[in-house]
Amino acid sequence: MRHLLSTKSLTRDEAITLLDIAEDMADVANREVKKLPTLRGKTVVNLFFEDSTRTRISFEAAAKRLSADVINFSAKGSSVSKGESLKDTAQTLAAMGADGVVIRHPASGAPQVLAGSGWIDAGIINAGDGTHEHPTQALLDAFTIRRRLHGTASRGRGLDGVTVTIVGDILHSRVARSNLWLLDTLGAQVTFIAPPTLVPADTSAWPATIGYDLDAAIDAGPDVVMMLRIQAERMNAAFFPNSREYSRRWGLDDERFARLSSHSIVMHPGPMNRGLEISSAAADSERSTVREQVANGVSVRMAALYLLLSGDREEH
Amino acid sequence: MRHLLSTKSLTRDEAITLLDIAEDMADVANREVKKLPTLRGKTVVNLFFEDSTRTRISFEAAAKRLSADVINFSAKGSSVSKGESLKDTAQTLAAMGADGVVIRHPASGAPQVLAGSGWIDAGIINAGDGTHEHPTQALLDAFTIRRRLHGTASRGRGLDGVTVTIVGDILHSRVARSNLWLLDTLGAQVTFIAPPTLVPADTSAWPATIGYDLDAAIDAGPDVVMMLRIQAERMNAAFFPNSREYSRRWGLDDERFARLSSHSIVMHPGPMNRGLEISSAAADSERSTVREQVANGVSVRMAALYLLLSGDREEH
Amino acid sequence: MRHLLSTKSLTRDEAITLLDIAEDMADVANREVKKLPTLRGKTVVNLFFEDSTRTRISFEAAAKRLSADVINFSAKGSSVSKGESLKDTAQTLAAMGADGVVIRHPASGAPQVLAGSGWIDAGIINAGDGTHEHPTQALLDAFTIRRRLHGTASRGRGLDGVTVTIVGDILHSRVARSNLWLLDTLGAQVTFIAPPTLVPADTSAWPATIGYDLDAAIDAGPDVVMMLRIQAERMNAAFFPNSREYSRRWGLDDERFARLSSHSIVMHPGPMNRGLEISSAAADSERSTVREQVANGVSVRMAALYLLLSGDREEH
Repeated sequence: MRHLLSTKSLTRDEAITLLDIAEDMADVANREVKKLPTLRGKTVVNLFFEDSTRTRISFEAAAKRLSADVINFSAKGSSVSKGESLKDTAQTLAAMGADGVVIRHPASGAPQVLAGSGWIDAGIINAGDGTHEHPTQALLDAFTIRRRLHGTASRGRGLDGVTVTIVGDILHSRVARSNLWLLDTLGAQVTFIAPPTLVPADTSAWPATIGYDLDAAIDAGPDVVMMLRIQAERMNAAFFPNSREYSRRWGLDDERFARLSSHSIVMHPGPMNRGLEISSAAADSERSTVREQVANGVSVRMAALYLLLSGDREEH
Repeated sequence: MRHLLSTKSLTRDEAITLLDIAEDMADVANREVKKLPTLRGKTVVNLFFEDSTRTRISFEAAAKRLSADVINFSAKGSSVSKGESLKDTAQTLAAMGADGVVIRHPASGAPQVLAGSGWIDAGIINAGDGTHEHPTQALLDAFTIRRRLHGTASRGRGLDGVTVTIVGDILHSRVARSNLWLLDTLGAQVTFIAPPTLVPADTSAWPATIGYDLDAAIDAGPDVVMMLRIQAERMNAAFFPNSREYSRRWGLDDERFARLSSHSIVMHPGPMNRGLEISSAAADSERSTVREQVANGVSVRMAALYLLLSGDREEH
Repeated sequence: MRHLLSTKSLTRDEAITLLDIAEDMADVANREVKKLPTLRGKTVVNLFFEDSTRTRISFEAAAKRLSADVINFSAKGSSVSKGESLKDTAQTLAAMGADGVVIRHPASGAPQVLAGSGWIDAGIINAGDGTHEHPTQALLDAFTIRRRLHGTASRGRGLDGVTVTIVGDILHSRVARSNLWLLDTLGAQVTFIAPPTLVPADTSAWPATIGYDLDAAIDAGPDVVMMLRIQAERMNAAFFPNSREYSRRWGLDDERFARLSSHSIVMHPGPMNRGLEISSAAADSERSTVREQVANGVSVRMAALYLLLSGDREEH
């Protein structure tokens, strides 16, 4: 694998390989010395055009656990913010010897431009681009579901037949998109539930069922209910009337949580708006995988960095 | 020791153990390679809800000298500043595998909440919480006093009978509070000198003498005179008339400095307002320990990180 | 060498030694593990009073490739921005055990003050001070010219007889000044071309020819044309009428680029204003050394850190 730009372009075999390597990486966390020498002498640049402390420190922890050197490059206050082109930034990082670039960018497609440009030979990982994709988030979600379902017997498996209901702001969510393609590739069945104003205009090509009624979706007994974070600015932009109304119709409140079938798990990419899209009881219950998702995020990102930067990297 | 939250809760034995380990750590700075492998594979997160470059880089230098990986997490511009709860932040850091969390927070008690919560198993070090405590500052001060008094024969000793006069904004100072409890535990006698407006309403439970007259306090010939930094915002809030007046009544100016008894040492936690609470002559004299305090800060923080994160850590 | 403060004070032998060591450092980038253990246990502080992400990450990459620990200290939001003196900052870094300090400061002469003060024993590298000097930029430029001219036979050589034309805002440019002194020391001949408003009042002591006519300078067939970045704020301050006018008279546009003699190389310190002082065709051509300059920057900075911080450092 040369780059990790989207889940849409991942084959089933590639996805399962990545999840299996992440299983090995998760074992490192249980060692006496939680560190592998694998990427010693490699340099990973976190190139963040948007603030995202959680994602940045997850990648930073992953890279350091593999003994890579990490350089944080926040675009704020840099020449980038003074209008330097992505091309010049990329060529600068290439010239400095970056082996991997983790990029978060407000423009959908920026990581693809970077990877396809020839400006830089480094492995590119998309850490979120506009409303497009956030592939490591979807991979950590799939990893988390697979582990909950199959435990130590997860290796080699997909998610065939697993039913996943994703609830919230589908229109703006790169997490929803990345999950959609990966879950479909792995054999799961996806249902989206959202306010009508927060569903894209054309979803005809999406391998998913779209609905508006969370109560009906819950009564269908999905294996997984994934709540998305609702951004305050959506409310201000009149996508829904107010937070109470949103919570009443599309929130996983205590009453809905109680009605979930006994085997269902509850996911959230974080950070949560407790009391808005998810109640504290749901967030903190045994069924919630919120903390596992964060821990698995480090393992999945170690796997991605390993695949892209180690000696085994695919030839150009 | 599981956490380092306050000096008030330290026993005399614990405090002396910590100071003695800091003596060992100070020796590392004289080595050819100033680095110990002790915390290799451990991750220390600097979780700073307030800016404090000096304290952050002191902990960062200490952790790196012990070969730990360091991740800086400034709450500004992060999801924390968008209202993420301390609980969710803590669980995120726990899930990412943080072994130690150094926390600076504007709210008194935040580190205690973190340590007592069960949200995270990491060792917590309070790097300053509101007006409450700043224990590593007090420990480095005690370490500095002990070294000045006893030199290489310091190990195992307390500060019995040492007289310490602390001057300035006692009302708002966590440094004053942490010093009070630790100095008392180690057997020293503490006098606070401050403008009446900058003394807490009820100090009846404090093992200290409170006074307002710096000249009388200096004529008493204390072993240690510790000047606190005066914040410009206190003046604006009318706690005292103006900086000239403050300096005239509560500053260690050249005249008062000349009257100090010959064995007295002068301390300041930094950064200093030269010409306000301390004159340059006092700050730069042989008696001043300002630079030693900074150097000893790294040693004391190495000791704290070692006690909390090494294999010898107390069981939960 | 104890400090690297300016190129004006470098002897020819010192400069060539530094460039030769940079040749060795450039070889490290081609190794399987791109890392030397040379500075293990040393601490390098990037002390930046001005933002400069490019320069900061170049030094950070250089220091990490030599296995030093790196601490980034941005003056923004620190006690420095609250008025702490350079003296107190320096003494703090000294006390924390900084072995090297890379300083960028808006005031011309600040690094010299730091180095000459006795406040800190660390090796000081000037990473840009006001309009004064930026020595590692000039060294990487000289390194780049030497490599283009002599390839693998560069070691030991100067730049005797090489003609270099530097174009743009000479008045404010520390890059221009550092290049002037170094190029002269190495035997090159320097011509400055600039708008009359952007030439210093008195250049009588400068070993350079000053001119205003870029077309004539290009027709003279220099070996090197170095375009300087033009700051938008100069335009606002009426140093020249507007960007179109600047570009028309002092920009390396496609027409001028086509008239360059066949052996000339085109340099730019970055970040470039494409279409203003340099056209994209010129910036991206085979003759452009822009990317080599960035790569060579890491090698030159490794050489400087090595000379200042390794065991071979000159005695005080």
